[in-house]
Parts: sequence; C-alpha cells; structure tokens
Amino acid sequence: MLNDFDHQFIERAFAEAKKSYDEGGLPIGSVLARGHEMIAAGHNKRVQAGDPIAHGEMDCLRKAGRQKSYRGLTLYTSLSPCMMCSGTIVQFKIPRVVINDTKNFGGNETFLRERGVEVIDVAHPASLELMARFIKEKPELWNEDIME
Amino acid sequence: MLNDFDHQFIERAFAEAKKSYDEGGLPIGSVLARGHEMIAAGHNKRVQAGDPIAHGEMDCLRKAGRQKSYRGLTLYTSLSPCMMCSGTIVQFKIPRVVINDTKNFGGNETFLRERGVEVIDVAHPASLELMARFIKEKPELWNEDIME
Repeated sequence: MLNDFDHQFIERAFAEAKKSYDEGGLPIGSVLARGHEMIAAGHNKRVQAGDPIAHGEMDCLRKAGRQKSYRGLTLYTSLSPCMMCSGTIVQFKIPRVVINDTKNFGGNETFLRERGVEVIDVAHPASLELMARFIKEKPELWNEDIME
Repeated sequence: MLNDFDHQFIERAFAEAKKSYDEGGLPIGSVLARGHEMIAAGHNKRVQAGDPIAHGEMDCLRKAGRQKSYRGLTLYTSLSPCMMCSGTIVQFKIPRVVINDTKNFGGNETFLRERGVEVIDVAHPASLELMARFIKEKPELWNEDIME
C-alpha cells in the first residue's frame, strides 16, 4: 500500500539515479525515510568513488549514519536490491522497501518477504526506462556492478 | 583445509580487530587475499567513522576497490559475518571465507555453504577472547552494531 508521501520519495530515488547517470556512474538511487521525513538519500558510487560496496541503498544507509533502530522506516530504491543490499535490509531490520524497478534486475523480493519485509514494486516508468538505457549503453560496467 | 599462508592472514584479521578495539571501536577485522598476496585489510568503523555499513568485511572490500572478479580470493574475518556481510560475500561471489570466531556471533555459515561458499571456522583463541571481552565491556555498542 502506497501512502501520499511515498510518491515524493519514489521520485527522489529516481532523481538520485539520474544524478549518478549524469555523473557517468550507475543510475541507481535510494532514499531512507520515516514517514514523510527524509533521513538520507544516496546513489551508486562505484564509478565516482571506486567503491564496490557503494550501491545506491548502501550509500544511502551510510549517509544516514548510526541509527539505534530502523523500526518504522522505509527504504526506497530505484532498482531491486542485490543480495548485498537485501542482506543489509534484513540485518538492519528495515521493515518496508519500495522498489521502482524489478524488471531490469530482481529476484531477491522473495528473500526479503520470507524474512518479514514488506516489499512494494511500483514499476516506475522513468526508472525502468533509464536503467534499460544504461544497461544497453554500458553493459560491462553493469556486469561489473552485479558481478556477472 | 588451511594453507600455510592462511595463518598469517588469520593473525592479520585479528590484528585489525585489536587495532579497532584500541581505537575504541568494535574489534572486528578482515583481510582479502589472493593466495599469499594480501589485497586489502580493514576493520569495523561504526565508531571511528560513524558508518553503520562499515563492518570489518565491508571496510576491507571497500578498500580493495573495484575488482573484475573475486574468483580465487579468500576473505578472512575475525568474527562470523552478519547477514549484510554474508549477502555481500554471495553477491561478490567470494568463494572462500575463513572465520576466526563463530562463538560470539554466528549462524550465517549455513546460508553461505548452501550457496557454494567454502567456510572454514578456525576458532582462533585470541579473537574469541577479545570479542567476548568487548561484548562484556560495551554491550550497548555491540547490540547497536548487530541491530539487536
């Protein structure tokens, strides 16, 4: 179920992805929020910082800093979380994940749901289009990021 | 099966843990190596950098930078990997993990083995002792790091 404030963060996750794309990086962005309050936003920094663990979700969680608890928080991501990011969501006990795109990458939604995470796939058209374009333009960089 | 060069990296992972402990941080260290060649070493930086994703293994993998493949590499860690770090090991296709301590924290060894990772538990006495001492000294910091 989407709330009113979800839509702005879905757009913000996409805006972070677009920012990274414009920087020559992987177009994957993420937002962490408590209801309508944004805690942090981030994007993939493999290219920008040479950092292989800085997927969009991880960069966002790093920026959010130390949290005593992630209870009641939602993680928004422009692309379905990989196994690293999914493991992190479970470890951090993030209860709710909103995903813009499960088409260009996906498969860990079941892993998350089986561990009690609410997963919402919103099929955000601009996110789907940008990721598909990027994979076509830079297949080697994409494969490096998902270790294929 | 342990090789001769494993022992030096088991000690180095512990030395990283000890370094972090001496800095007032969580005493968990890690090394990434290709045979006898060390690629990177790191330790938990939750306290030192206020970074919740910087577990020992993650800090080490970040320092190792972009790798085209982790084939043939071994990740050494002074403490059994949490779900974030285990997800990362699977995502990065790291084939071999050597763990100094599965007693003070553990449980994801099965998750790793089921996904084809070779997991070796060496029960390193100094690592076991240091971690047990830390948990007794700073239970709140420990619980924050594993989100309990």
